Amino acid sequence: MEFTSINALLDAYKQKLITPEEYLNLAWRKAKADAHNCWISVVSEAQLDGYIKRLNSVNPKFLPLYGVPFAVKDNIDLAGLPTTAACEPFSYTPGQSAFVVQALIEAGAVPLGKTNLDQFATGLNGTRSPYGACKNSIDPTYISGGSSSGSAVAVALNQAMFALGTDTAGSGRVPAAFNQLVGLKASIGRLSCRGVVPACRSLDCVTLLANSVEDIQYLLPIAGQYDPQDAYARDFAEAEIEPEYMASLPRIGVPNQSLLSFFGNDDFEARFDAAKKQCQNLGAELVELDFKHFLDAAKLLYDGPWVAERYAAIQTFFDEHESQCESSIQAIVSSARSLSAVDAFEAQYELKALKQKADSILSKVDAILIPTAGTIYTIAEMRDNPIELNTNLGYYTNFMNLLDYVAIAIPADERGKGMPFGITLFGDKGSERKLLALADAYESERAFDVIEPVPESMLIAVCGAHMKDLPLNHQLTDRQASFVAQRQSAANYRLFALAGEGPKRPGMVKVTEGGVSIAMELWEMPIARLGDFLANIPSPLGLGKVELDDGTQVTGFICEQAGTVGAVDISEYGSWRTYQRREP
Amino acid sequence: MEFTSINALLDAYKQKLITPEEYLNLAWRKAKADAHNCWISVVSEAQLDGYIKRLNSVNPKFLPLYGVPFAVKDNIDLAGLPTTAACEPFSYTPGQSAFVVQALIEAGAVPLGKTNLDQFATGLNGTRSPYGACKNSIDPTYISGGSSSGSAVAVALNQAMFALGTDTAGSGRVPAAFNQLVGLKASIGRLSCRGVVPACRSLDCVTLLANSVEDIQYLLPIAGQYDPQDAYARDFAEAEIEPEYMASLPRIGVPNQSLLSFFGNDDFEARFDAAKKQCQNLGAELVELDFKHFLDAAKLLYDGPWVAERYAAIQTFFDEHESQCESSIQAIVSSARSLSAVDAFEAQYELKALKQKADSILSKVDAILIPTAGTIYTIAEMRDNPIELNTNLGYYTNFMNLLDYVAIAIPADERGKGMPFGITLFGDKGSERKLLALADAYESERAFDVIEPVPESMLIAVCGAHMKDLPLNHQLTDRQASFVAQRQSAANYRLFALAGEGPKRPGMVKVTEGGVSIAMELWEMPIARLGDFLANIPSPLGLGKVELDDGTQVTGFICEQAGTVGAVDISEYGSWRTYQRREP
Repeated sequence: MEFTSINALLDAYKQKLITPEEYLNLAWRKAKADAHNCWISVVSEAQLDGYIKRLNSVNPKFLPLYGVPFAVKDNIDLAGLPTTAACEPFSYTPGQSAFVVQALIEAGAVPLGKTNLDQFATGLNGTRSPYGACKNSIDPTYISGGSSSGSAVAVALNQAMFALGTDTAGSGRVPAAFNQLVGLKASIGRLSCRGVVPACRSLDCVTLLANSVEDIQYLLPIAGQYDPQDAYARDFAEAEIEPEYMASLPRIGVPNQSLLSFFGNDDFEARFDAAKKQCQNLGAELVELDFKHFLDAAKLLYDGPWVAERYAAIQTFFDEHESQCESSIQAIVSSARSLSAVDAFEAQYELKALKQKADSILSKVDAILIPTAGTIYTIAEMRDNPIELNTNLGYYTNFMNLLDYVAIAIPADERGKGMPFGITLFGDKGSERKLLALADAYESERAFDVIEPVPESMLIAVCGAHMKDLPLNHQLTDRQASFVAQRQSAANYRLFALAGEGPKRPGMVKVTEGGVSIAMELWEMPIARLGDFLANIPSPLGLGKVELDDGTQVTGFICEQAGTVGAVDISEYGSWRTYQRREP
Repeated sequence: MEFTSINALLDAYKQKLITPEEYLNLAWRKAKADAHNCWISVVSEAQLDGYIKRLNSVNPKFLPLYGVPFAVKDNIDLAGLPTTAACEPFSYTPGQSAFVVQALIEAGAVPLGKTNLDQFATGLNGTRSPYGACKNSIDPTYISGGSSSGSAVAVALNQAMFALGTDTAGSGRVPAAFNQLVGLKASIGRLSCRGVVPACRSLDCVTLLANSVEDIQYLLPIAGQYDPQDAYARDFAEAEIEPEYMASLPRIGVPNQSLLSFFGNDDFEARFDAAKKQCQNLGAELVELDFKHFLDAAKLLYDGPWVAERYAAIQTFFDEHESQCESSIQAIVSSARSLSAVDAFEAQYELKALKQKADSILSKVDAILIPTAGTIYTIAEMRDNPIELNTNLGYYTNFMNLLDYVAIAIPADERGKGMPFGITLFGDKGSERKLLALADAYESERAFDVIEPVPESMLIAVCGAHMKDLPLNHQLTDRQASFVAQRQSAANYRLFALAGEGPKRPGMVKVTEGGVSIAMELWEMPIARLGDFLANIPSPLGLGKVELDDGTQVTGFICEQAGTVGAVDISEYGSWRTYQRREP
């Protein structure tokens, strides 16, 4: 019995087609029997039973991930299993799970074990592990992508329903692409990194790997709880409550043709063209943009001083055990020893300048569409040329964390079109919700949702004490409203001087006959301020639609007729200002 | 003829009490005659005439700083005068002024010359200059404070109306305090640093020094234009348009007593107590808070790797001319040579963790009040112990830029109370407007303005198609509104099924007799969303006050009586939902 979405599994539990105990044992046995080098360790039968017992003690309706099996990349702590980072001499067994793992367990998810990775999460290919090269889930002669290789393959082979990876340079996206999965690298600090072996601590992200965008949307709020004890955590909750608006057609940027690179893979090139066309078919406007600054930022990652972060993360261990590390890792990490603080600051200046340029380009579109990786290699090819080919795999991924962007990697097309080719949609930090909405539409071949942008300001027609120089005008100016024009209402109104306390106010009552035209002022107010302006308007006044003398309708003051009891009809003056001057 | 505010000078010009030519020549002669070591270079008579001629060619009403003389710290480029950074062998003569200088000149301000500073802006005391120790404007045996020493003293002695300084560790605040001035260190990136000799490029700020908060408020939008070519520039324009709200009484934090230090200066300690009392008198609630994390961040500045930025800024020059630099600067800058990239990243991790703790404390108050400097020294004392006493001067300033906060330094009390003692109010990045408002109230001994906070959401009473499960309910839920309760209106209404196109809607019309109570639902909506909700409500409906059966009034749907022509009175049903069910 296989399920391709979290909700399908939860439904099956609800309908009692299968019990969590049965399904978790099934998944666990599949993981134990894995032949792709996915796992570094799998939980014991006793540990699995412990998780199942805990499940049975809680009402499932309080557990959004009730009995959902997941995999944990082996640089993320899971209490009771060693954290190796794919380097056995480095390993330790934590007593406590990483914040994000604990959050998932508390939501009812059940960890099956720890997955294989490029050592110290340094690599994008999945072969840099003493636990064996992780094999591609579709064709085992191919690389799985890395460094979150085992996490991706375990999900793709239906051993786990979803997995946690990490991503500093593309490690959560490339394996998603190569195994026909969805991988979300959220904003830095969106998912807690407490309890994760750092790669580059200022750039590291925990990622989600799953079968569909829908699953990722379901997982994000659970896994992405704010962790005030992670120094890099940022609280994006508000940004997510506030919906993102897109112009009526989303504008999607694509790199200028000359800076695209597929490293000779014509198939992937053609499929990227097809992905672009698909975006247009779904309603997007494609905008070609200069990709140079993004690529320049990418180059900084391995050519610049950020490798010193990889050294800082494991310095004591590395200085003592260098020769026990994987050869590519030895070469990369040891290069950090000669880097000075001046090197570090100067590269940060350079990045800052590049980011300003890249941000300015990004700000012109709703998202940018790129290949996740330009090509794929066999395990044999990768072993022959481990550094250069790995660099090629990072061509479209290396800049993302440095520039503090969000990226969602999704399959470009359905299974069986050849080796899996993936695309990535990326946007500014905090844009998870918008990118997931776009990715979801693409994945389900649904037209991109059109969400009308909210205007920033609106016009209000006023006819009384809110007009210029009158006692309540400050209620407009305090709210940054500005004067637009003097206008006349349609000749359908009677004007009353209302009875009551406080500043004298008029009320304009619409009538079906005997109406006159009233002098009004149009003011423009930031739309966000309307609410508290309205809250301060007393009965019988309110805001509705006022008809102007050219027949147009504008938001403005209206008055309930019942409120004119005791009021004086001053329609003959045609203007509150004139009435006030003549009858002070 | 002396003026103590920019507006007083501009008024004098307007009233033709003096011409810009006369006043600028007066100021220029004062600067030429200066005996406090304020200036490193003063513009030539021909240069001054050039600025005056340019003034005469433009209508003054387009020049907000028409004929206002200012001073430029000599690490900021002014076209045609050398930039020395107080190190003659380093000097160069720029062909172009710094962005911020150019912005001021284009607004009509006239630069008189370049002012003395602690060499390479490294120091807080004003004695570290081969151009002579800059003398305090009130007692010339005392230090002026630094590194923006000449800028402060030139303004204090009325040679310039305002001045530009820079601030990395307190250089714009300490000299303000010691010369009875106001100094604003705005958010990093608020004033462009393009055309400024860097000290620590990631932390540097250009500062404003003036006689009053009012002058700073006037100068900030002019000097603070966004510079897209400065990699560290940030566009805070929106934050400034949006007003800052304070709870009805501003909450002002003060450091816990045990972490205050006055280095034996009992006079300053007593005056800080008086400043705290004054804040209470003006209406603030004082909140004692733990100052430890702020001080820990301060220690990172000189003990940590940020000195490598000072080295990076002048590396080529320094390696060749080290012996020609001031002795303290030699000691500080040369210490950077041994710092590694790992040191740099590890200190950034430490800072990140401290910032998260400090931010959390800061978020509980509207601003934090501290002494600007705990004590002051004579020039002789400073020369005897140049490093330790300088460190003391930075006790309350060194953390500010590292933590990305805004600080406004103002005099604690009036002139003549002894040596000038200053206080600083600080807050989060982007809080310039709020801090200036608080500082302005303090300075003018006015009660702190009470600005009522805007509530985040408001209740709306609906009676028709917006109710749960009805066709327009999505207009509420799309705007994150949530259901609160079912209620009944007061028995003062008639309910009409309105005529017209689209989803069927009712209108509740208030009546003076024969009313019934109508079933309603209360929904709570984020107040910012009310505006566009209102914009979509068609005539004859609107939002006003609805009376509930307990006599309270709540914002909700009202209806113009004129709009009920052709409508069916359905009051007998008492509920739109009942009517809809019975008459589908």
